[in-house]
Amino acid sequence: MTRHCSLGLDFGTNSARALLADTRTGETLASAVSPYTHGDAGVIGDPLDPDLARQHPADIRDALQTAVRLTLAHAASRSDCARARIVGIGVDATASTPLPLDAAGQPLVFDAAFADQPAAHAWLWKDHTAHAEAAEITALARDIRPDYLRICGGAYSSEWFWAKALRAARTAPRVFEANATWVELSDWIPALLCALDHPATLVRNACAAGHKGLFHPAWGGYPDAEFLGRLHPQLARIRRTLPRRTGTIADTAGTLAPEWADRLGLPAGIPVAVGSIDAHMGAVGAGIAPGVLVKIIGTSSCDILLAPLSNQLPTMEGMCGVVPHSVLPGFEGIEAGQSAVGDIFNWFCERLQPGGPEAGSHEQLTRAAAQLTPGQSGLLALDWHNGNRTILADPRLSGLLLGLHLHTTPAEIYRALVEATAFGARIIAERMVACGAALDRVVACGGIAVRSPMVMGIYADVLGRPVEVAGSDQTCALGAALAGAVVAGRAAGGHDTFPEATAAMVPAPRARYLPDPTRRSVYDRLYRHYQRLHDTFGRPGHAGALGDVMKDLLALRDATRPGA
Amino acid sequence: MTRHCSLGLDFGTNSARALLADTRTGETLASAVSPYTHGDAGVIGDPLDPDLARQHPADIRDALQTAVRLTLAHAASRSDCARARIVGIGVDATASTPLPLDAAGQPLVFDAAFADQPAAHAWLWKDHTAHAEAAEITALARDIRPDYLRICGGAYSSEWFWAKALRAARTAPRVFEANATWVELSDWIPALLCALDHPATLVRNACAAGHKGLFHPAWGGYPDAEFLGRLHPQLARIRRTLPRRTGTIADTAGTLAPEWADRLGLPAGIPVAVGSIDAHMGAVGAGIAPGVLVKIIGTSSCDILLAPLSNQLPTMEGMCGVVPHSVLPGFEGIEAGQSAVGDIFNWFCERLQPGGPEAGSHEQLTRAAAQLTPGQSGLLALDWHNGNRTILADPRLSGLLLGLHLHTTPAEIYRALVEATAFGARIIAERMVACGAALDRVVACGGIAVRSPMVMGIYADVLGRPVEVAGSDQTCALGAALAGAVVAGRAAGGHDTFPEATAAMVPAPRARYLPDPTRRSVYDRLYRHYQRLHDTFGRPGHAGALGDVMKDLLALRDATRPGA
Repeated sequence: MTRHCSLGLDFGTNSARALLADTRTGETLASAVSPYTHGDAGVIGDPLDPDLARQHPADIRDALQTAVRLTLAHAASRSDCARARIVGIGVDATASTPLPLDAAGQPLVFDAAFADQPAAHAWLWKDHTAHAEAAEITALARDIRPDYLRICGGAYSSEWFWAKALRAARTAPRVFEANATWVELSDWIPALLCALDHPATLVRNACAAGHKGLFHPAWGGYPDAEFLGRLHPQLARIRRTLPRRTGTIADTAGTLAPEWADRLGLPAGIPVAVGSIDAHMGAVGAGIAPGVLVKIIGTSSCDILLAPLSNQLPTMEGMCGVVPHSVLPGFEGIEAGQSAVGDIFNWFCERLQPGGPEAGSHEQLTRAAAQLTPGQSGLLALDWHNGNRTILADPRLSGLLLGLHLHTTPAEIYRALVEATAFGARIIAERMVACGAALDRVVACGGIAVRSPMVMGIYADVLGRPVEVAGSDQTCALGAALAGAVVAGRAAGGHDTFPEATAAMVPAPRARYLPDPTRRSVYDRLYRHYQRLHDTFGRPGHAGALGDVMKDLLALRDATRPGA
Repeated sequence: MTRHCSLGLDFGTNSARALLADTRTGETLASAVSPYTHGDAGVIGDPLDPDLARQHPADIRDALQTAVRLTLAHAASRSDCARARIVGIGVDATASTPLPLDAAGQPLVFDAAFADQPAAHAWLWKDHTAHAEAAEITALARDIRPDYLRICGGAYSSEWFWAKALRAARTAPRVFEANATWVELSDWIPALLCALDHPATLVRNACAAGHKGLFHPAWGGYPDAEFLGRLHPQLARIRRTLPRRTGTIADTAGTLAPEWADRLGLPAGIPVAVGSIDAHMGAVGAGIAPGVLVKIIGTSSCDILLAPLSNQLPTMEGMCGVVPHSVLPGFEGIEAGQSAVGDIFNWFCERLQPGGPEAGSHEQLTRAAAQLTPGQSGLLALDWHNGNRTILADPRLSGLLLGLHLHTTPAEIYRALVEATAFGARIIAERMVACGAALDRVVACGGIAVRSPMVMGIYADVLGRPVEVAGSDQTCALGAALAGAVVAGRAAGGHDTFPEATAAMVPAPRARYLPDPTRRSVYDRLYRHYQRLHDTFGRPGHAGALGDVMKDLLALRDATRPGA
């Protein structure tokens, strides 16, 4: 009997993963990762500007090929995969990670004339160089298009498409004028696979367009030409290259083109689904459904919830985005998130490295931190080391650590940082409920959810709810495989709808963490202090009247940085 | 020709130092250190109670003998010391470090029955177990003896004599009832040397009695019996063992007794000066005079300034103490200080140890931190890792680190901690000036002042004043040697007054750091933020309204600590 499979492709911050899943059972038949090679694990930084984070499209292209070939080789070595047939391909990538293309649909940085230009690279999601441009977009929208802010939490982010494009147009005009269009990474990869070489043939996905590009049916798609033109004439030009409609992950972007079929060792013609944002695809792979909050907890966090499709513009203050069809077709996709979670723990282990590489490892610190009782360290932290995405939507914030003592240990700080991210997660969940969203279950996925029972236990205690961990440890790639199965359709060995695909392919939770009443009550007390710090430091004009301190410190940092 | 010398004995937190100085030139002829052996470098802690810090009197006794014998051996090896004659001995020690004595004048812990009792040890200055008792003393004074609070900055400290005695009486009544009296370490050492075996013969020094024991001529000496009796009947008993008068460092406590003359290899009969607090003696060795702020910067800081002798009770809010004759006879001695300075840097290097023992060393971090420009890290810290002595007089505060970022480096944090202590120093200096004190020069001494040009440069920039570094790197021991010279008198080869001794024996500054206008202006801006954090977190009821956060976190820590 032929085994029908779907290939899910997941492009993360540091590497790409391919995953081959059985469309009937969801079983992962083979999977492989290929790391990026430029910069620091694929992230190209600038020692003089900590806000800068770029990615080289060649890393994406090469890792795509390597990860798929490795996966197919693994599958070929299995006796039970002898008759496996790939019926569809799905793709997700980080966002907003836009890059400029030339008129032939090639990344501009592939052109030797622009190879050394940082602006010609992909602008990685966590690049924050465009904070002034984001503020400018927010201000202009507030002035002339207030509705634009209602789908993006009240403020446009420096991480997003138009802020980055505006920054590029301003600071690298020669590079910018040379591009034919700008594209999200999650749209460029399907275009690459399907040889959609002309900008006009590119399909833009509803998820990235809506959550990062201000695309909404209420105003007929992307922001209008007047709005973009007032920001920069070049943005109005870019707008003319963008389509009026977007696709969802139930739609086919194209079919696998001969060139890439050869590269991957697959037959040409396999349908390729429209792309999506990695976290949203992760929610699919975690089994998202109405009332299920999926938290993808990795270097940052992304919190995804569904709401009934609405004809009205949303009013959910602080949510990063509320976008129709963004997660699954037929629902409003609500996105929130924390700008850094694992990145904060990594910062502590890798950059501060308390006690050296071994003593400062996640394993050792987790072991020691797990022994601590909530409240015992006297520490409280704000998890804003990379700004605050939800609910403050303000990248110009920073981390805080309070309660330090001459006896404070690395493990105590490590735990306080974990707790801070849990408090940040609670702020988001409480705001979702306050906005009227149904929230019945919390399902966590991502590297930290799988690897750290200590972190998940703290989340359950802090949230005061059971926290399930998704059955798959590769929910993004699995979600992409579901999309591949759905674009294939049942007749071809896939599925006709996402509920069907979910029922067949998403495994049961691997773990369930229950809150402990004693620990929970301590955390309730700490959380009240967290809220006070959150509001005092995060809200300008709040009674605490300290809301401008961090901003001014950052402005001062920028002003005094050598070379600034 | 006979060379006249004075022997200075300085008892620090971790070791004792002896120093032999020429009374004509101040030249250090020989010096030696002997470390304490109990606990962690002489500090006996309790893993379950980070507030506890005790010291074993045997360490003091043994280190005294070893340090003096080593010093004399060094001197004996010098050809130019062949005819050296020691004309006087001076002594200083940490304070408030009280210990219980038995009826024979022996430390109670030398009695086998009490050898294992923490309460029978010396209660090291940085022991904070008595914070509740300190608050109780403050409250009672506010209620019935408000004048008491006017010499100690408005609040009695958990570091001080009566708080520790009260704590001991409450928590270890069997030990407490067995003592004949309690004595400051700086009084016990002269008594030991001079065999003043009976409590009644003990001389209490004006410095420790006034700054730590609420002794003031305005109320005839120590707190009255009614006041102490309301705290605890045993305190009223202790009061009956205390004298009505104190001595100054110009007074003789006694003469070297035969037993200790034998132990040290010296002739009996050498006059021994009344003791003093180490930091105050350091001010003497740094050349204190009216208008000179001496900052002793070591594990903690002590800031000493003189004011004209006054018959009125002082009104210098926040100063730890304003005490007649405490530093030098004939002046009011003003003491302020920071509860931790070097201890904070040590915490970062030794407990957090970023990057491991080598990368996390003071040397490496200083080298990297010195390269940074003020403001560049975006960090701001509060230096309250051991509470705040001046001007808040509140041990129930904790350290804060703000502005953390995923790129924050250990060196940036190290520098931010240094800057925080400099801001704390500026708060003190500004308050002194606001209270009307003359402040013409700043002279720094202590280990950090000598060893770290980076720290001193930052202090000059933050204070906006030149900072001189005292010529001696052993100002405490040198100050003690000055006291030894003065109790000897000019006729015996010493000096008749401290101005004479200072002119002869205190060397010129070894360095002078000038503020840089650019760096100063950045620090002015950071300092304004520091003040806002200081007031918001440090003053309950302040507009920021966050003053209770740290206290509640500490209360919670105490309540949830295993074994609490």
